[in-house]
Amino acid sequence: MEKLTVIKVGGKIVEEETSLQQLLSDFAKIDGYKVLVHGGGRSATKLAEKLGIETKMVNGRRITDKETLDITVMVYAGLVNKKIVAKLQEIKINALGLTGADINLIRSEIRPVKEIDYGFVGDVKQVDGKKLSVLIQEGIVPILAPLTHDGHGNLLNTNADTIAGETAKALALFFDVKLIYCFEMKGVMEDITKEDSVIRHIDRERFEELVKTGIIKDGMIPKLQNAFDCIHAGVKEVIITQSTDIQGLNGTSID
Amino acid sequence: MEKLTVIKVGGKIVEEETSLQQLLSDFAKIDGYKVLVHGGGRSATKLAEKLGIETKMVNGRRITDKETLDITVMVYAGLVNKKIVAKLQEIKINALGLTGADINLIRSEIRPVKEIDYGFVGDVKQVDGKKLSVLIQEGIVPILAPLTHDGHGNLLNTNADTIAGETAKALALFFDVKLIYCFEMKGVMEDITKEDSVIRHIDRERFEELVKTGIIKDGMIPKLQNAFDCIHAGVKEVIITQSTDIQGLNGTSID
Repeated sequence: MEKLTVIKVGGKIVEEETSLQQLLSDFAKIDGYKVLVHGGGRSATKLAEKLGIETKMVNGRRITDKETLDITVMVYAGLVNKKIVAKLQEIKINALGLTGADINLIRSEIRPVKEIDYGFVGDVKQVDGKKLSVLIQEGIVPILAPLTHDGHGNLLNTNADTIAGETAKALALFFDVKLIYCFEMKGVMEDITKEDSVIRHIDRERFEELVKTGIIKDGMIPKLQNAFDCIHAGVKEVIITQSTDIQGLNGTSID
Repeated sequence: MEKLTVIKVGGKIVEEETSLQQLLSDFAKIDGYKVLVHGGGRSATKLAEKLGIETKMVNGRRITDKETLDITVMVYAGLVNKKIVAKLQEIKINALGLTGADINLIRSEIRPVKEIDYGFVGDVKQVDGKKLSVLIQEGIVPILAPLTHDGHGNLLNTNADTIAGETAKALALFFDVKLIYCFEMKGVMEDITKEDSVIRHIDRERFEELVKTGIIKDGMIPKLQNAFDCIHAGVKEVIITQSTDIQGLNGTSID
């Protein structure tokens, strides 16, 4: 199978002009098939502020009422996504911006209300890897905004990490998939106060040790569990690294 | 060649919930390949107002400074386009929302400054009918937002009528194209005060007569000239009709 890289980048790097240019130029250099998944939360919060709409976050997730949904659609599918697409076209990358509603790519279900009502937030149910792979094999580079749809006419705000993971899994049937998660640190750190303490490789066994010893804890546990789920579902390698290293050369490799 | 219908609908019909539902259900009923081109000006003006940004229009065109461009991108490519896509997916139409930047579909040039500086407004230079026809033949239904790009990383606000016309021309190489322009009247009227005075058919000769006698005048002249340009470029039929008649059964047929 041919190689494909799925890269998830957070909001900050795509929302500032200079870091975005660097990111896209790095992205252009990646060999083989590729998919970019982006965030845009900071811009959404900024637009909400300008419109006098209060932003409510719970566990890092945006409570998405009707007005907030419209804001995320405008910012993620419009402003952020199309700016990336236009800039990639400038450097001859045949980018195509997509939400999960386009070509029915990602179906989700509105998150059930338990302690918290997240509103129009979707949990991913199905990614159409077949349809996406056809586009990719035509030379198209999909740029995915963190929005999905429920099949009943509703767009749903959806976590970009989840979209990246589920898309990587769905594409693993058609390609040798490497999934790169970019975040604010250099990788999984032995000691977060020491820049040079990146743990370069983690397998399932090492993961369990690191959790036992307390080196991996809190939000890092679900992040890594998600990575192992992807590996289990056929993704060849997951790399956790920082946004300046989207080729994943210096991060933590998980398999 | 197989039949394809390009339909251009204005802002109002896609911006109101009930008329949008009716439009999309009518759109679903159209046989054969199809493309929808939409506006969204009213929503853009509304968002600008909420953000305290003044809307300036000259000859019906929006003066598009940097802030206004962002608004059009958010509204056209985000809010309006993705709402249409999600609602079409609900009724099993395999919609794909596109701007001219996506897959480098529509290249434009920023409009030269003469008496008026329109800002980030694009004049269409090239539509990639080949790439679009490949998607269409895969069963994808393109939904085009009125935005293009200049190939230098800039999105440009672009007239939806022009996008519909140029797209119809580009697709005429691959399909038997019918182009339907929906606007506020029933068609080209013999007497705009009389509802039943729709002129059902206009060819080049009749057009010249109608201009001479003053029945066709003002903004209607360029509209019809544009229609004849499309016919000249290989589009089989252009229909001018109202938004409640997107099948073009009761409007003015131009060939």
